[in-house]
Amino acid sequence: MIDRTARLLDLYAGAPLGAHLGMRLRFADGRAIVDLPWAVHLDHGMSGIHGGVFGTLVDTAAWFTAALHYDVWIATIEFQTRLLEPIAGEDLVATGSLVRAGKRLATATAEVRTASGTLAAVGSASFTVTGVPLP
Amino acid sequence: MIDRTARLLDLYAGAPLGAHLGMRLRFADGRAIVDLPWAVHLDHGMSGIHGGVFGTLVDTAAWFTAALHYDVWIATIEFQTRLLEPIAGEDLVATGSLVRAGKRLATATAEVRTASGTLAAVGSASFTVTGVPLP
Amino acid sequence: MIDRTARLLDLYAGAPLGAHLGMRLRFADGRAIVDLPWAVHLDHGMSGIHGGVFGTLVDTAAWFTAALHYDVWIATIEFQTRLLEPIAGEDLVATGSLVRAGKRLATATAEVRTASGTLAAVGSASFTVTGVPLP
Amino acid sequence: MIDRTARLLDLYAGAPLGAHLGMRLRFADGRAIVDLPWAVHLDHGMSGIHGGVFGTLVDTAAWFTAALHYDVWIATIEFQTRLLEPIAGEDLVATGSLVRAGKRLATATAEVRTASGTLAAVGSASFTVTGVPLP
Repeated sequence: MIDRTARLLDLYAGAPLGAHLGMRLRFADGRAIVDLPWAVHLDHGMSGIHGGVFGTLVDTAAWFTAALHYDVWIATIEFQTRLLEPIAGEDLVATGSLVRAGKRLATATAEVRTASGTLAAVGSASFTVTGVPLP
Repeated sequence: MIDRTARLLDLYAGAPLGAHLGMRLRFADGRAIVDLPWAVHLDHGMSGIHGGVFGTLVDTAAWFTAALHYDVWIATIEFQTRLLEPIAGEDLVATGSLVRAGKRLATATAEVRTASGTLAAVGSASFTVTGVPLP
Repeated sequence: MIDRTARLLDLYAGAPLGAHLGMRLRFADGRAIVDLPWAVHLDHGMSGIHGGVFGTLVDTAAWFTAALHYDVWIATIEFQTRLLEPIAGEDLVATGSLVRAGKRLATATAEVRTASGTLAAVGSASFTVTGVPLP
Repeated sequence: MIDRTARLLDLYAGAPLGAHLGMRLRFADGRAIVDLPWAVHLDHGMSGIHGGVFGTLVDTAAWFTAALHYDVWIATIEFQTRLLEPIAGEDLVATGSLVRAGKRLATATAEVRTASGTLAAVGSASFTVTGVPLP
């Protein structure tokens, strides 16, 4: 999996949204891990971290975890995010887990914790395996 | 509903994530509408708009549509986003629809279209009605 | 669509779960409609209709609505069901709506109402278009 | 937790849908486990087990796992089911896992395997904690 990891890190390095939010991607034990240090631009109008940020973390950690199992682009069909605790001003870490990597479809989950270990959000996603090669 | 609309627009004006992504909120016919002009910072590593952006639009349009029915903060329990088409380089418009505004729980959906009318994503969300007053 | 409607009604007629629960399928205006008269076997342990029944209605109404657009089997990838009201002792009607019928993937929603019109549940589903012909 | 286990088994014993489908509930290590021997009444029209059956198993295993943490009724807000493999003619076992049991809201997941160990479906659910005492 060494090659795929390097290729996905390259792909991520060219992803503007990740840099715009401040997310950093790494891999460990076959899982994608996304670190997101808190910054004020992540907040909603009541000074907590916006739900869309948790959704983006779930989508990203689940996608890169599933993508480790393919040499082609996988397209997200849908993802669901459950927000478990209101979180304010804390660094976040999202970790993906593979559920199934099939020939046509893949499924992965992700959990988002604060740096201090609180489980902030969980989510899951479905992907369809395309015929488009990765760069 | 005039008062609630004004108060929610004020709340939105103080939401850093929206400004960071370039989202603009308005209300029409009891629905929240979120405009998001395309910018390169919205993209994933294959030059399409990132799924997390669609999730953020769904969460925002559904939340503000449901919030029109309350004088207190509603907390997002979960939201799901279905991505229907890969979209690249297009301005987006998300529109919320209320499903139910109950005493303890609310549900709303949202659809995201490109400026040219393509249905790009649909989603839905559940909210719990808190006792926390809005500012 | 006449042919597909007839073929899907035949397919449904051979579906044991539907008969076991008491569901009846019909089509109108391009939508699948599932009628389910109340019976005690639909209840959970607190004498309301079980959430699994609403899930089954959502899956069935969404599936048959999407299936109208294909000559092959579509396989359900996932479905989500939101329960809006506790319902006891009432006949139910589920109605599907197509969101998108693509070449590889389809999406549909469904709503479940009581015979007296209360919106009891809403849901949505994703399907993958297989190469398996329908009988 | 002995008392709650006994009370929930009693509650389940009075749930008509479970008996109608052939489900049996037990608890082990803080998880609800639902056994469902295959029977023809579980099938859809193409002779596989109906998606609604997997949804019902997810809802039931997740609900009873979460319910172990409360002395009151918890109402299902929504549940999502992902179908990973078409399954035909096999006995099923669903196992719940608690994600979070909060004061107002609870979240649990469930997985459904065949008796031979194939992961057939996964799902997750949100519950709201009511003030209604259990019988």
